[in-house]
Amino acid sequence: MSIHAPEAATKILLDEREMPTRWYNIQADLPFPGSPPLHPGTKQPIGPQDLAPLFPMELIKQEVSQERYIDIPSPVQDALRLWRPTPLMRASRLERELKTTAKIYYKYEGVSPAGSHKPNTAVAQAFYNKAEGTKRLSTETGAGQWGSALAFASKLFGLECMIYMVRISFEQKPYRKSMMHVWGAEVVPSPSDRTQVGRRIRAENPDSTGSLGIAISEAVEDAAGRDDTKYSLGSVLNHVLMHQTIIGEEALLQMERAEAMPDIVVGCVGGGSNFSGLAFPFLRDRIQGRTKTRFLAAEPEACPSITRGKYTYDFGDTGEMTPLVKMHTLGHNFIPDGIHAGGLRYHGMAPLVSALVDHGYIEGVAYPQRSVFDAAVQFARAEGTIPAPESAHAIRAVIDEAVKARDRGESPTILFNLSGHGLLDLAAYDAYFAGTLSDVTLSEARIQELVGAL
Amino acid sequence: MSIHAPEAATKILLDEREMPTRWYNIQADLPFPGSPPLHPGTKQPIGPQDLAPLFPMELIKQEVSQERYIDIPSPVQDALRLWRPTPLMRASRLERELKTTAKIYYKYEGVSPAGSHKPNTAVAQAFYNKAEGTKRLSTETGAGQWGSALAFASKLFGLECMIYMVRISFEQKPYRKSMMHVWGAEVVPSPSDRTQVGRRIRAENPDSTGSLGIAISEAVEDAAGRDDTKYSLGSVLNHVLMHQTIIGEEALLQMERAEAMPDIVVGCVGGGSNFSGLAFPFLRDRIQGRTKTRFLAAEPEACPSITRGKYTYDFGDTGEMTPLVKMHTLGHNFIPDGIHAGGLRYHGMAPLVSALVDHGYIEGVAYPQRSVFDAAVQFARAEGTIPAPESAHAIRAVIDEAVKARDRGESPTILFNLSGHGLLDLAAYDAYFAGTLSDVTLSEARIQELVGAL
Repeated sequence: MSIHAPEAATKILLDEREMPTRWYNIQADLPFPGSPPLHPGTKQPIGPQDLAPLFPMELIKQEVSQERYIDIPSPVQDALRLWRPTPLMRASRLERELKTTAKIYYKYEGVSPAGSHKPNTAVAQAFYNKAEGTKRLSTETGAGQWGSALAFASKLFGLECMIYMVRISFEQKPYRKSMMHVWGAEVVPSPSDRTQVGRRIRAENPDSTGSLGIAISEAVEDAAGRDDTKYSLGSVLNHVLMHQTIIGEEALLQMERAEAMPDIVVGCVGGGSNFSGLAFPFLRDRIQGRTKTRFLAAEPEACPSITRGKYTYDFGDTGEMTPLVKMHTLGHNFIPDGIHAGGLRYHGMAPLVSALVDHGYIEGVAYPQRSVFDAAVQFARAEGTIPAPESAHAIRAVIDEAVKARDRGESPTILFNLSGHGLLDLAAYDAYFAGTLSDVTLSEARIQELVGAL
Repeated sequence: MSIHAPEAATKILLDEREMPTRWYNIQADLPFPGSPPLHPGTKQPIGPQDLAPLFPMELIKQEVSQERYIDIPSPVQDALRLWRPTPLMRASRLERELKTTAKIYYKYEGVSPAGSHKPNTAVAQAFYNKAEGTKRLSTETGAGQWGSALAFASKLFGLECMIYMVRISFEQKPYRKSMMHVWGAEVVPSPSDRTQVGRRIRAENPDSTGSLGIAISEAVEDAAGRDDTKYSLGSVLNHVLMHQTIIGEEALLQMERAEAMPDIVVGCVGGGSNFSGLAFPFLRDRIQGRTKTRFLAAEPEACPSITRGKYTYDFGDTGEMTPLVKMHTLGHNFIPDGIHAGGLRYHGMAPLVSALVDHGYIEGVAYPQRSVFDAAVQFARAEGTIPAPESAHAIRAVIDEAVKARDRGESPTILFNLSGHGLLDLAAYDAYFAGTLSDVTLSEARIQELVGAL
């Protein structure tokens, strides 16, 4: 290395005029046939009309589109420019600390107003709803990342926003609820008295702490029962994953500028949207045989849908109100343990991610909670930013890969998605330092019990 | 307006190679003599040796330097590049909502790992201490913005960090304390049993909730009593303000690029450092007669040092351990009411800001708490970002100026410093929505009582 070699850049920024103006729809490039969603009643493939009570027609079209690229509407671009393009960072300090020969880059999505990647699709969904006359959106939220993102987007486009928040989170995690209030949304604990399903569950169990499955059912019932209201979902669906591909399209430009194309792309997975947002544009090249990039999806051992679930048709919600989709699942009745990475507590996995896992394009890896927080704290102390517990799963995988590379004398370029910051998750860090975090791992017997029922 | 006119940019980003590499020292350009700090015992001007037990010599030199520019050391630049340059944003949505003819820009400092401008000086102070052999830093913190910034910086440079946190904040605002733990600092509630002054106060009043004045005394005593430890302050001092001028130097480049030089520059003031950081590089041109820019310092009515304090020599702390400095002050025994903008609860004002107020370069304006939160929520709903309660004082001033401009048919360009985000202050927003925020205004009699004693 020459003494005059310019020091490696800490970050690669794009000018806002370089922000991608279209989404990448990986459905156009899949080298295998898709598996259609099935009607929950008839078990036959559903058509657009089945979804029309819940979603605006443009989103229904995107859900099944075979177009490779879809233009991002100009008002959505304007909204995205409030925080996009997001920075690509070189984690030089972490590399030094690990004494690794790997190069580590990360895309940082925590700069959005809501602090995660979720607003990328929230603003798109709010826009299409506004354009088709929707007055009000309903949704569910667990820990609140998605609810806060949709509250923000609804305010930007002048929509009312109704959020059913899992009751235990509503009570234990008050501050994402506060964010939703700042952005003008209405938030109620779920199960609530607003819906039939909520009232029924409260009648059966007045102390119910709620679950994501119940909250989804409430939000869907709310939207289905009102002409002015549509339903909005923050992950899993094809169009949601597509809206997130702006992350990877930006990262492609930035990695080209850094002259460092990734050998390994890493993201955490709950429903699959932040992982897909980064990975799909790079998968485009892999599918077409131009690269041999590895794709690593990091999930919690407490909810290991990819690594230990079954690839089969299952419901998206506990209440069996949604269509059946083919995915890696632990079963729609599975209630994951209360780990702090609330965004990863989903029984299933996006159908597109599941199919790509099934065909060998994506590898899954699962981690227990404490080792994830070890990685989170190591990252925060080296790079400054305090990661969300969800994103820390990706960091755990990256550190493990970087250490392996060092021990093998290899120098891969690793790219991961730091999908959000942890400033609303500091109680989880307190628990880590207090030594009260539990490691939840599902026994083989429990897994057999779960997937055996499918 | 032509249909083909390019839309105004939402934000102006600088490449990290454009980050300023020197600080601006306004002491070189003041058109009036300075007022030296006085020894707390002798009341004579202090010399460098008086400060040597507390600060490294480079910072003591900077405190009195008459050099116009001081180079930012390369390791400090490397640390700053973790989040700098920060974005300059056009608040187009807020402009539209206000129907104002004014153009509103803001510099956003909330992108730092600690979420405010404070790390700009924290990394510099940590570096100079490390370079001169300091092993450990002590400091005080109220709500925790400064403590978290110094914890972060100390970890980057391998220093231990000891933080005395005002007891009531330690108990009521646990999450900035959590951030300090993530970055490896030790945090104790003040008054503590670690120092003589702390033990004395606890003996007199076991239930003392603490105050910034007490915490300063503890941190100073800690540093003065240990060879391995120096003291670090987050505002007020000349060198601290200078380290913040990187904000204004970047903003100058960005406003030039936007072809929009400001007619009014606005910041909130507690000790004065974020305001000075943005304003001083623009004041350089005003002092030299090249512009007529107005400078507006926004403070809380609960702690109105500029607008209602006395310009005189006073102590920096309640315990009378610090030098006396000439400043706008409400008296070093004044304990401001517990408003949520904890960073603005300081009895005095930076000597440099005070002198510039006294000579007519800077105007003060004070606001009650509820109107500040009105502005904060209006901003969050228009622009997305949820501001810190401190920064919201600047927003209140900006909105008032923009509305005045509209009513007068004027089109000024307004630039303000959004010094931090409010994601660790959401309980204050909850209080605002619950209607439990109080407006504290000091009566004329109370002001007379306070300043009469000076």
